[in-house]
Amino acid sequence: MTGDDRFGCNRHVTLPGPLRLDGGMLLSPVEIAYETYGTLDADGGNAILVCHALTGDQHVASEHPRTGKPGWWTRLIGPGKPIDPARDFVICSNVIGSCMGSSGPASVNPATGRPWGMAFPVITIRDMVRAQGMLLDHLGVARLKAVVGGSMGGMQALSWAATFPERIAAAVVIASTARHSAQNIAFHEVGRQAIMADPKWQGGDYYGGEPPAAGLAVARMAAHITYLSEAGLTEKFGRRLQARPGKEDGTKSFGFDADFQVESYLRHQGLAFVDRFDANSYLYITRALDYFDLAEEHGGLLANAFRDAPTRFCLVSFDTDWLYPTSESRAIVQALNAAGAPVSFVELSSPYGHDAFLLDAPEMNRVVDGFLKGGR
Amino acid sequence: MTGDDRFGCNRHVTLPGPLRLDGGMLLSPVEIAYETYGTLDADGGNAILVCHALTGDQHVASEHPRTGKPGWWTRLIGPGKPIDPARDFVICSNVIGSCMGSSGPASVNPATGRPWGMAFPVITIRDMVRAQGMLLDHLGVARLKAVVGGSMGGMQALSWAATFPERIAAAVVIASTARHSAQNIAFHEVGRQAIMADPKWQGGDYYGGEPPAAGLAVARMAAHITYLSEAGLTEKFGRRLQARPGKEDGTKSFGFDADFQVESYLRHQGLAFVDRFDANSYLYITRALDYFDLAEEHGGLLANAFRDAPTRFCLVSFDTDWLYPTSESRAIVQALNAAGAPVSFVELSSPYGHDAFLLDAPEMNRVVDGFLKGGR
Repeated sequence: MTGDDRFGCNRHVTLPGPLRLDGGMLLSPVEIAYETYGTLDADGGNAILVCHALTGDQHVASEHPRTGKPGWWTRLIGPGKPIDPARDFVICSNVIGSCMGSSGPASVNPATGRPWGMAFPVITIRDMVRAQGMLLDHLGVARLKAVVGGSMGGMQALSWAATFPERIAAAVVIASTARHSAQNIAFHEVGRQAIMADPKWQGGDYYGGEPPAAGLAVARMAAHITYLSEAGLTEKFGRRLQARPGKEDGTKSFGFDADFQVESYLRHQGLAFVDRFDANSYLYITRALDYFDLAEEHGGLLANAFRDAPTRFCLVSFDTDWLYPTSESRAIVQALNAAGAPVSFVELSSPYGHDAFLLDAPEMNRVVDGFLKGGR
Repeated sequence: MTGDDRFGCNRHVTLPGPLRLDGGMLLSPVEIAYETYGTLDADGGNAILVCHALTGDQHVASEHPRTGKPGWWTRLIGPGKPIDPARDFVICSNVIGSCMGSSGPASVNPATGRPWGMAFPVITIRDMVRAQGMLLDHLGVARLKAVVGGSMGGMQALSWAATFPERIAAAVVIASTARHSAQNIAFHEVGRQAIMADPKWQGGDYYGGEPPAAGLAVARMAAHITYLSEAGLTEKFGRRLQARPGKEDGTKSFGFDADFQVESYLRHQGLAFVDRFDANSYLYITRALDYFDLAEEHGGLLANAFRDAPTRFCLVSFDTDWLYPTSESRAIVQALNAAGAPVSFVELSSPYGHDAFLLDAPEMNRVVDGFLKGGR
């Protein structure tokens, strides 16, 4: 594939579409930012699609061009890792609705020549998956060895198995769920209201001006709490106070500065996020997550989503994940069993809550490695 | 006490003070809004202080003068209830820092003749308790039969036992904790940042103008999620959609309206709250809660807070309360055991999470009733 500029890091393609969305609208063109690693086998049998989470991006195993940070899942993908570009052809694309180069509210609306803003159509997880399907066509990948994802990435893997069963041999679904719960929706709604309450949001029409950074930071702070476990927060911060000039041991200010380290950490998380993410994209992707209910798309019975699917499944949950707890994975396993689909499932122990899938998790690596090798 | 205008509903007293606060400042005068029910015995032995939670008020068993709603704990206090004004002399006062008539950021700063705003001193749970002590002096109540409270009210009951052991025969501590955890602090910090991000907050100097309603509503929404259990939210709302004119069965809007009932409910909680609560008071009281760590006030050992206390304790937790989970009550019980203090403890089953203590809880009533009778 040398010289084929469809492959490599920092790729971008504008596909004519149209992509028919679950909401009924036709999206055209469909822009997709993506990366590939490794080389597609002649028989096309080594392609693995990796799907990112809410605020993730396509730079799964390469340095982020703007922040200079390493790829977000180099613990799982890289030389000697369970997904290895020396063996596997790896694809990761930015989901539509996002803001890292794929079509989203910050993209140009061809009808107006200006950013879509809130005129961008509401999209679903399945729409993201359909756009990925178009990208695979563009890349000449007929069938995937596996779709792998954590959190929202796991939802995409599930949706792949349900939407394109003939194109996917295996799905790895980590720290995920087949539907957003009332509590999941509630947390997202707090975030959306925080953004929309920011006067700078301007109904989503802030491009070219100042973004609703304060609202987005609050949204991120609220969400971030759900990514960590109570025990993890206690271990990492407890009630420890923030050192200050002249007060290195930390004392209460009897004011509203960030006295506690956990306050300072959260504020930092909020502020750092607004530099790298678009507030409208946050609205659209949280909406897609809240709309996600794979059973509902299949007559109310989750097993129907996987009926007669030729896909093997691997599910991993973490015992301290309270965003998408083990019970959600277990419900998926039961549906897969009912559908007669082969599934392996393990709950791993970790102090880190939902974030565990992005952190050092040797057991997770072993499970994924064994599962992917088992399919050869 | 007929004709004594210190007693009855909707009372207000301005005490000269000064009240020396934990932060070092002297508060003067000290205004306290309160209510009393029943008649103080000649020997003064039937007085019960009821302490309210974060956003509560003094109208514990009487109709709220503005909203017309019944008192917030009429399930526990009233004719034939565990706390019965026919037998008990009941006192409930608005905590300082709040906005229902006691000294707080919306009160007039005597130095300027204008509302304190953020010049109001940061207060602690112990400061609230000391102000209640001054109120008891004013009412001629030397010693309390019991201090009873849930959530922040329970913290006050604990602080009473630690601060004025000679003035309190029994403490009833429901759905509470002896210290705020990192996760508790994190949620409150989200709320504070939401308020302070609202341009209408104006550094707290918004009195006479428009309050930071949008920020306060977001703060309330985030907090409200922590008051409910995941299972309770699922039972009450699940993923059910909101009925709309012409779409009574509920369909997805593919927009950003409140599609889900849980979204609508949360928005309503946020909006209703801003009508009845002052944003600055929310900042001050959440700060007092986050600062609360009874062990820290006693050399780092919780048992020291209760050493040689003549107080009997009753602790109640709810199994689905993830704000102040049973483990927190258990830690208090262990400290009380270590201190040799008599304590009865029960974890009750409820689907309602933290809010359970304010809802219909017949078992809680039986426990409190038995405990209070046991002390006679």
